[in-house]
Amino acid sequence: MEPHELSLAAAAEAIRARRLSPVDLTEAVLRRIEELDPQLGAFVAVTAERARETASKAAAGDQRGPLHGIPVALKDLIDVAGEPTTASSQVRAGHRADADSTVAARLTGAGAALVGKTHTHEFAYGLTTPQTRNAWNSGRIAGGSSGGSAVAVAAGMATFALGTDTGGSIRVPAALNGVVGLKPTYGLVPRHGVTSLSWSLDHVGPITRTVEDAGLALSVLAGHDPRDPASVPAPTARYRPAAEDLAGLRVGVPGNYFFDRVEPDIAAAVRRAIARLAALGARLVDVEIPMTRYVQATQWGLMVPEASAYHERTLRAVPDRYTGDVRVLLEAGELLTTGDYLRAQRARTLMRQKWTRLLETVDVIAAPTVPATAVPSGQESITWPDGTVESVSDAYVRLSAPANITGFPALSVPVGHDRMGLPIGMQLLGRPFEEATLLRVGHAYERGEPARPLAPATAGD
Amino acid sequence: MEPHELSLAAAAEAIRARRLSPVDLTEAVLRRIEELDPQLGAFVAVTAERARETASKAAAGDQRGPLHGIPVALKDLIDVAGEPTTASSQVRAGHRADADSTVAARLTGAGAALVGKTHTHEFAYGLTTPQTRNAWNSGRIAGGSSGGSAVAVAAGMATFALGTDTGGSIRVPAALNGVVGLKPTYGLVPRHGVTSLSWSLDHVGPITRTVEDAGLALSVLAGHDPRDPASVPAPTARYRPAAEDLAGLRVGVPGNYFFDRVEPDIAAAVRRAIARLAALGARLVDVEIPMTRYVQATQWGLMVPEASAYHERTLRAVPDRYTGDVRVLLEAGELLTTGDYLRAQRARTLMRQKWTRLLETVDVIAAPTVPATAVPSGQESITWPDGTVESVSDAYVRLSAPANITGFPALSVPVGHDRMGLPIGMQLLGRPFEEATLLRVGHAYERGEPARPLAPATAGD
Repeated sequence: MEPHELSLAAAAEAIRARRLSPVDLTEAVLRRIEELDPQLGAFVAVTAERARETASKAAAGDQRGPLHGIPVALKDLIDVAGEPTTASSQVRAGHRADADSTVAARLTGAGAALVGKTHTHEFAYGLTTPQTRNAWNSGRIAGGSSGGSAVAVAAGMATFALGTDTGGSIRVPAALNGVVGLKPTYGLVPRHGVTSLSWSLDHVGPITRTVEDAGLALSVLAGHDPRDPASVPAPTARYRPAAEDLAGLRVGVPGNYFFDRVEPDIAAAVRRAIARLAALGARLVDVEIPMTRYVQATQWGLMVPEASAYHERTLRAVPDRYTGDVRVLLEAGELLTTGDYLRAQRARTLMRQKWTRLLETVDVIAAPTVPATAVPSGQESITWPDGTVESVSDAYVRLSAPANITGFPALSVPVGHDRMGLPIGMQLLGRPFEEATLLRVGHAYERGEPARPLAPATAGD
Repeated sequence: MEPHELSLAAAAEAIRARRLSPVDLTEAVLRRIEELDPQLGAFVAVTAERARETASKAAAGDQRGPLHGIPVALKDLIDVAGEPTTASSQVRAGHRADADSTVAARLTGAGAALVGKTHTHEFAYGLTTPQTRNAWNSGRIAGGSSGGSAVAVAAGMATFALGTDTGGSIRVPAALNGVVGLKPTYGLVPRHGVTSLSWSLDHVGPITRTVEDAGLALSVLAGHDPRDPASVPAPTARYRPAAEDLAGLRVGVPGNYFFDRVEPDIAAAVRRAIARLAALGARLVDVEIPMTRYVQATQWGLMVPEASAYHERTLRAVPDRYTGDVRVLLEAGELLTTGDYLRAQRARTLMRQKWTRLLETVDVIAAPTVPATAVPSGQESITWPDGTVESVSDAYVRLSAPANITGFPALSVPVGHDRMGLPIGMQLLGRPFEEATLLRVGHAYERGEPARPLAPATAGD
């Protein structure tokens, strides 16, 4: 196996045992970027020099931490001292971050080597990443807004990456590119130094090749930082999942919402994966998802005004530097009344209460991450068999928004491919600060599956 | 001393020792209401029958709890099963509460006897209580919005009472009527079953004759209830203050804001009280209050839209049942943009961070509760020596709003009278969930003072 193909866990272990040099790992990843990124467009900037410097120091010095010499890519909303944070936007022309974000500082402190900053939908305000192509089929979308990070990890252009998730932006591209994405509990991973889209819905989290890797990354990322006002002083947990069965675990299987208007291949793959959880000892429980008709209005009702408030000054100063779709959304957000926003806030409070009660009856809920695999680039809507026409954005956000609104953790795990060879993701949702349970379930599932290869990064259909 | 003059602590102790019958206490309080309330106007409804029934059962039965047989009055925003909650508004005509609010249930469970529901500014939306007269001078305002509760306690028409505080509505009338008012930390006392004014600023708390009494009441009121989404599962503390000096305690004395545009008699009385805290062993520390020019805009920017959202339906259905001033505020609130609200939310976040840092340098802050004693009924503005003209409402809310915006606890303690014989309050502000420290300071101050008599409840000037 080539170094760039290794999981985070395997690479870290090989480096610790001195079977692999951080320099060789970094060079393999940089070579992979050189070969594939011109076609895939995952990176805004490749920080080869910085990566090489970290790798040589790692090769020469003592173990710095659990990510010693591991190549990482960061979504370009995440500040790294001395680098621009472009947010994939012209608005940020000339930007340069003065200091590391909390997460960048934690990764560096644990020994990770930054290979580059990855593309996002401009300011994360969308469910695609226009600059980036799907790692499995270059004629298909990467999904977003953390599309660059997901494609980098899927194609071996980084051992792991960070994304942000306001309405599914970690989980959606993870699912569409066949990698693992974790949106942690609201408040667990500090957002200090990360550009905001909607502060009451924003999360930072890892995109990795295995569930175990997500646990390793989360162990480094989690922990209180008062510079993020929403950061919670939660007790630290052991996130690296152990090998164990699922005896006694109650897995909720939604009878409504999460399997409505979902592509048949996705529904079948997720139900097969759920059956495997049962075979591993889990007890399946039918559950009903509460307040589903409020999901979309609540997600948009919170996100749109907060995004407009965040961009208020630049929208006045340099409106023409925004791309058309984002500018329209930001301008529309200024027209919403406080009543709309407060209705959404109140609906969120009720939804949190009802989800809390629901998750007293089961330990996790298993469902599709997205209702459709990666659509062809340029496709704007999906027509469902019942005649419903849904915009691609609405479809991709539909099943991920509940975890943003409630703030509850959600993990997307690859569970196969559809008939066109496009990846399918299963979403596991759990109780606040019980990431360890999600990771345990995802890891148990994954151990029974054949090892996942890197994405082929081949031409489109 | 007559039974209705006893503090909660003294009455409870006398009942426990069987030196006082709950029936005699209740009858004394009901007699007092009969004599004085026609003039004072503190009560919306007197629940004499309910009080007598509770008192006879208390006299006959075993100790039910720490408030066994103690007469209490509740601001008429607080639901009591079977009673109307009028909110002092025509909008609530025909209302009857199905169930007890959390606080009513906790008081009843601890043995308290409800003597009546007290007047509020309509729906608590104002700093006065038009129906109620000041207990010390009937030509003066009671303050509000918990004016009925404060006057009832000050005049011996209840042994203690509950109020609500969104911008000072417990502390302002407590200060103006010479009683103790405690606004607990946001989230400590559940608001389930209490009519909301502005959910992110609303608090429920006790109005009592002594600081010790406030601690006794808080012990019964505090504790998690998930039916209030803001309720926090905080550890229970010992709130009844012990007799001790203040050695080592750091008391912050504001150099700005809290002594600006304050009546000279108030400034002098509060500075005398602070000197007494120093004499008791406290160390005085000069502090600077942060972000003071944002206080008013933040308070109003949060309160006005939330109030309008709460009243949205009734304002459409029965606009004419609101009094003019409240209706204008509610209608104006619908015109505010989401941007205004979100700016206030963000300012609150910053204020909380800065106050948190400030309270790392001192244990409590001591300041006036209000900048002016009770103004004559009908007076609408105050002209300060520097020529500033301030509405009475703005003046009364000015020094209390910081504790609503931050959610930090604040206690108002009587510290004397001005040259017209009107009561003066000192406000003690502290760290979240450190009510015990505020109570300890207030109690230490109070023990060195002569016992406070009931208000004379005499005619005006």
